[in-house]
Amino acid sequence: MPAGGIGGARFLQGLLAQVESDTEITVIGNTGDDIWLHGLRVCPDLDTVMYTLGGGISVERGWGREGETFTVKDELAAYGVEPTWFGLGDRDIATHLVRTRMLQAGYPLSAVTEALCTRWQPGVRLLPMTDDRAETHVIVDDPDGAVADDGSPQRRALHFQEWWVRYRASLPAHEIVLVGGDEAGPAPGVLEAIATADAIILPPSNPVVSIGTILQVRGLRDALRDSGAPVVGVSPIIGGRPVRGMADACLSAIGVETSAQAVGEHYGSRQHGGLLDGWLVDSVDDEVAIPDVIVEALPLLMSDPESTGRIAAAALHLAERLRP
Amino acid sequence: MPAGGIGGARFLQGLLAQVESDTEITVIGNTGDDIWLHGLRVCPDLDTVMYTLGGGISVERGWGREGETFTVKDELAAYGVEPTWFGLGDRDIATHLVRTRMLQAGYPLSAVTEALCTRWQPGVRLLPMTDDRAETHVIVDDPDGAVADDGSPQRRALHFQEWWVRYRASLPAHEIVLVGGDEAGPAPGVLEAIATADAIILPPSNPVVSIGTILQVRGLRDALRDSGAPVVGVSPIIGGRPVRGMADACLSAIGVETSAQAVGEHYGSRQHGGLLDGWLVDSVDDEVAIPDVIVEALPLLMSDPESTGRIAAAALHLAERLRP
Repeated sequence: MPAGGIGGARFLQGLLAQVESDTEITVIGNTGDDIWLHGLRVCPDLDTVMYTLGGGISVERGWGREGETFTVKDELAAYGVEPTWFGLGDRDIATHLVRTRMLQAGYPLSAVTEALCTRWQPGVRLLPMTDDRAETHVIVDDPDGAVADDGSPQRRALHFQEWWVRYRASLPAHEIVLVGGDEAGPAPGVLEAIATADAIILPPSNPVVSIGTILQVRGLRDALRDSGAPVVGVSPIIGGRPVRGMADACLSAIGVETSAQAVGEHYGSRQHGGLLDGWLVDSVDDEVAIPDVIVEALPLLMSDPESTGRIAAAALHLAERLRP
Repeated sequence: MPAGGIGGARFLQGLLAQVESDTEITVIGNTGDDIWLHGLRVCPDLDTVMYTLGGGISVERGWGREGETFTVKDELAAYGVEPTWFGLGDRDIATHLVRTRMLQAGYPLSAVTEALCTRWQPGVRLLPMTDDRAETHVIVDDPDGAVADDGSPQRRALHFQEWWVRYRASLPAHEIVLVGGDEAGPAPGVLEAIATADAIILPPSNPVVSIGTILQVRGLRDALRDSGAPVVGVSPIIGGRPVRGMADACLSAIGVETSAQAVGEHYGSRQHGGLLDGWLVDSVDDEVAIPDVIVEALPLLMSDPESTGRIAAAALHLAERLRP
């Protein structure tokens, strides 16, 4: 299962509650949002999955650690060092220190993630999409109003986190680019997991900066197309609005409407070079129809573990039905 | 003034209270105790001076920050990463993050220290003794009882902090070695400060691993000998015991008795190739006599700012008297 941040992690919680305990689940995590902050390597999506499934997540915020404090962040601000807009928690920093040290010692991110997971025991095999550096940047008009020689607004590339966290995705995105994406190969185990899966689920993660980013890793899209396993997607859009987060700001950047219909079409049918065999949409979107994709409608709001479990169960049942 | 940790910092507080506000004080800080911990560069002596004079020190502990918490440390232990014996506080970690990032960007430690001091405004110019890496290691019998081929205890070199903090200096030291000391040159400004000083004070810091370490920096001992300024030392030993800390364990490693007499002799008179023109000892040690060194006895316990101020004033007055 390729997975982004909070939506993906919540969905995984529901999924784990539905399957037999010996079911092997591999999660391919988005690393395009990863960022160096104050010399520390921060991997928000991997950590959100790890903390959520390992019982360390802040349930209220959906990211970062429960009972988190921000002493280091406040002190860094007192030194006047930038950036100050990222919510780097004290507990979280220990994770980043261990990760940074291992990376600097030469371990690939996949090995680092495995090491961190020995503490958290997330109950899934968590793989970064790639061990290579590939960072999502967002092209916007200069936030400070700088103007180019021809009088038009100067464009600037912001790291995804700066656009998302600092500006709350409020600056219209002209383009979203995975810098280094052309060279990023899959982490060990990624293609094998896809090739040998019984079912592949695209959770209700951001279709652009989570799922879309993962799909840009070399060979990954082909592996999904070639896999013998059925691919079932869960719409992150309900009634024309993102379930959570600001997916609409990302979708508009790639010219896709914020609707379950449009995202389903954007993913497309596997029979026509796309990704999907099945597509779960919310009951309010029951008119959605994608050629050669089996669409099912059910309540998709992940409001509690039970409702999330029902969605995960529906995705598994649909995959079962679609298995050749 | 070459200065080590807590003793040096306390003395400096007293000194600052005694001098005119436009008096320029340069502190040459010991960096032999510096250590890499969890990928962070920690400089205990520089930070103790900076925090003490900048009002950020934990008055109770004498090291680290007031109101400190240890969340990151606890989390690192939860990941099972070593070492766990160093008291790395959350507030403190921000200092180390800024320092580590600047060092990794190529700034020398002297520039990093200056940058950190723009926040703390210690009221002195704080210079590391060297920008080069020189680390104090302590040769001990293997703490786990390993035995060499000939049946004698296997010797091991511990980083000074491991010996001092983890083992509380309880393992007898066969030798104390400044690894890299032969190649360590003085940081910018160090020799100039010594050459142009009006008075040079050796505060009641550890004579071996603070003052002794600083004196091993290339050219520093010669600069002290050649300076036109009088050199006055303040004994860190009162009545045969260290004022604070475990200086006795260090002195025995270099074959020097723990007494004001022996440490004064160890420093020696400048007229005979040593360091001292004057030597302040405690009233209980008023029988101390060092050939060609002016010895004065007065209460040396730095029990409060007033008593510390009196000691600093006595050191300044003695230097004034000794000025050629």
